[in-house]
Amino acid sequence: MAKINENFLKLQAGYLFPEISRRIRSFQAKNPDVKLISLGIGDVTQPLVPAVIEAMHKAVDEMSKEETFRGYDHGHVGYEFLREAIRENDFKARGVTIDIDEIFVSDGAKCDTANMQEIFGLDSIVAVTDPVYPVYVDTNVMAGRTGPANKNGQYGRIVYMPCTAENNFIPDLPKTPVDIIYLCFPNNPTGAVATKEILSRWVDFARTNKAIILFDAAYEAFITDTDIPHSIYEVDGAKEVAIEFRSFSKTAGFTGVRCAFTVVPKQLKAYAKDSRAVEVNSIWNRRHNTKFNGASYISQVGAAAVYTSQGKKQCRKIIDIYMANAALIRQSLTKLGYQVYGGVNAPYIWMKTPDGLSSWDFFDRLLTKANVVGTPGAGFGPAGEGYLRLTAFGKPAEVKEAMERFTAV
Amino acid sequence: MAKINENFLKLQAGYLFPEISRRIRSFQAKNPDVKLISLGIGDVTQPLVPAVIEAMHKAVDEMSKEETFRGYDHGHVGYEFLREAIRENDFKARGVTIDIDEIFVSDGAKCDTANMQEIFGLDSIVAVTDPVYPVYVDTNVMAGRTGPANKNGQYGRIVYMPCTAENNFIPDLPKTPVDIIYLCFPNNPTGAVATKEILSRWVDFARTNKAIILFDAAYEAFITDTDIPHSIYEVDGAKEVAIEFRSFSKTAGFTGVRCAFTVVPKQLKAYAKDSRAVEVNSIWNRRHNTKFNGASYISQVGAAAVYTSQGKKQCRKIIDIYMANAALIRQSLTKLGYQVYGGVNAPYIWMKTPDGLSSWDFFDRLLTKANVVGTPGAGFGPAGEGYLRLTAFGKPAEVKEAMERFTAV
Repeated sequence: MAKINENFLKLQAGYLFPEISRRIRSFQAKNPDVKLISLGIGDVTQPLVPAVIEAMHKAVDEMSKEETFRGYDHGHVGYEFLREAIRENDFKARGVTIDIDEIFVSDGAKCDTANMQEIFGLDSIVAVTDPVYPVYVDTNVMAGRTGPANKNGQYGRIVYMPCTAENNFIPDLPKTPVDIIYLCFPNNPTGAVATKEILSRWVDFARTNKAIILFDAAYEAFITDTDIPHSIYEVDGAKEVAIEFRSFSKTAGFTGVRCAFTVVPKQLKAYAKDSRAVEVNSIWNRRHNTKFNGASYISQVGAAAVYTSQGKKQCRKIIDIYMANAALIRQSLTKLGYQVYGGVNAPYIWMKTPDGLSSWDFFDRLLTKANVVGTPGAGFGPAGEGYLRLTAFGKPAEVKEAMERFTAV
Repeated sequence: MAKINENFLKLQAGYLFPEISRRIRSFQAKNPDVKLISLGIGDVTQPLVPAVIEAMHKAVDEMSKEETFRGYDHGHVGYEFLREAIRENDFKARGVTIDIDEIFVSDGAKCDTANMQEIFGLDSIVAVTDPVYPVYVDTNVMAGRTGPANKNGQYGRIVYMPCTAENNFIPDLPKTPVDIIYLCFPNNPTGAVATKEILSRWVDFARTNKAIILFDAAYEAFITDTDIPHSIYEVDGAKEVAIEFRSFSKTAGFTGVRCAFTVVPKQLKAYAKDSRAVEVNSIWNRRHNTKFNGASYISQVGAAAVYTSQGKKQCRKIIDIYMANAALIRQSLTKLGYQVYGGVNAPYIWMKTPDGLSSWDFFDRLLTKANVVGTPGAGFGPAGEGYLRLTAFGKPAEVKEAMERFTAV
């Protein structure tokens, strides 16, 4: 008799974004003429830049001729031309030495952050921030690394680290032992960023406790302050304890193209029950080889074009558009008397709901009155209750209109 | 202290294909002037067809304009235009009714066959054929569904079903209880195909035992005999017990493009410990939503073009080229006195090694003497010992030369 993995039955109702889609569909069914503006889901709206488009056309043409056709990306870890460009531009240019075989190209940072937990023991204690990107938690629930959820939607055995206005949305170090720590800076959903000093504190903690940090840097391209690290490896000793996730999704508008990469340093060790140290890089390589077959060649060629001088300039212009959105949202809401966080060095704005409203009540009010869609903070965890996440990824004209609608409500 | 998932430490030395690559590199390092011909790894060599190329260029152009740009494939299960084409052409045209929400588009059948086990209980007993595509086994090892390997490389708790010349490479029904059964027809590596009568026997067995069949149909496009089913759903009752995996990799040369799909019927149930039946479709949907972010839009547009009338004709021509290779390999080796199987309705030829040689010894002999690369049958399991797998995916001129080299040795 085929048994279901009962851990899936522990999951709380609907992954956040499908639930939002459901409420939108229900509203639109009753109000078909209303034009909603979404500042909710973190999807980009600006088209791919010319350098990427040109490169991808070339790649498609290569696929049409026997001499230049490409089949499997052997080793499934990404073409060298792309991994070289990553090593050079994302790391060496920032003073960080990363070997090419420490870089694993994939079809998305969501997939990588979701899959990485697999290579660690089921008895590992996982620490996450609250609020948190739900993928980190749900994938550990599915794997059986947690108990059932309590009435707040928090799962047994997970260590939640609250991020509140009081601690500037930077979690305190855990007081109980933890093995795997998920950190995301610039943060989704709060828009908080971590200085080198903050990251050093975490790296020291992990080294002392032989813990591993899973560092999600998917939004590093939005950092403009020169003293904020883009990579956790800018901190000494981080290569011993941190895995870093990067993505072209927000950096270059690749949400529909699918390309990302993960860095697993060779110094990084996890431990067997007999305390023997095991190299994590080779274990992840084995997992990658066995369960993945490489990112699309066309996507990889497009990603490499992001690192050309034209590509860099063009992508920077897109980021500037989004950051202008962020600034407009911050200014408009502040002027209206809202309390807002983030939106500087980060594409997310974390706003306090007015009148003590719950996140979902404010979501519904915005949806029905202003016809603007946000993401309820409570969907990211109990400490997100009373907040709404807005993103800077909208079309400028729509962001402007959304702010006017806010003013009108 | 971060613990490693010790199940990874149970895995036997190197996944098959990396080990082959290692031997090839070692040979080529010593013999840099030798031009090897690979009939080994199952990668295609013919370029993408014009209908696909044209569609992908169009998709790239759409990505360059704000009005037609596409971000996330919402729901992450594939665009409707592609799922509609699949439903219509792969199923309705063969008398099979599949709903659009039973189709999950992904970036590869390898990924799907690797990931599917996650949604089933760790106490499930898994049955696989011997020889077998290593991904089915290794992913269950990683998850902890097996004991350690014995000296034959077979893992505890897995039920192996030998496929030999005696049973025409069609496994007998298991004599002990099993919960999850992996079947692949047309088979990789033996090239065996299953008639409707054979598939019916398996469906009946699964229904009687409340087992689930994971049916890998990645090679269905190579079936030419009209009485061989392309889908397990051509058998009555299969929707209650079978999940089917399909791919554009071999059908349309998408190994570097990445697009595939999986069918999870809504009738299909697995069971909780309290015997409650759970709908597998919604559990897989939840997994897909949480751990995957959709296949590339460009790849999906390319895949949809495979179903246009031009696309069908052009892809058929490519399949015909490969099947002519298969026929040439069969004829040449038979003439030389080798015992060969498969290569009809399937792109794989399964040849008996001569002189009682082991698979790896024959692999090495072929590599060093004929400079032809095959895949050692033993790499697929103990029952594959004494066999070598050849694939029909080479360039016709190279396949011809490989056969001449065989003759010369």
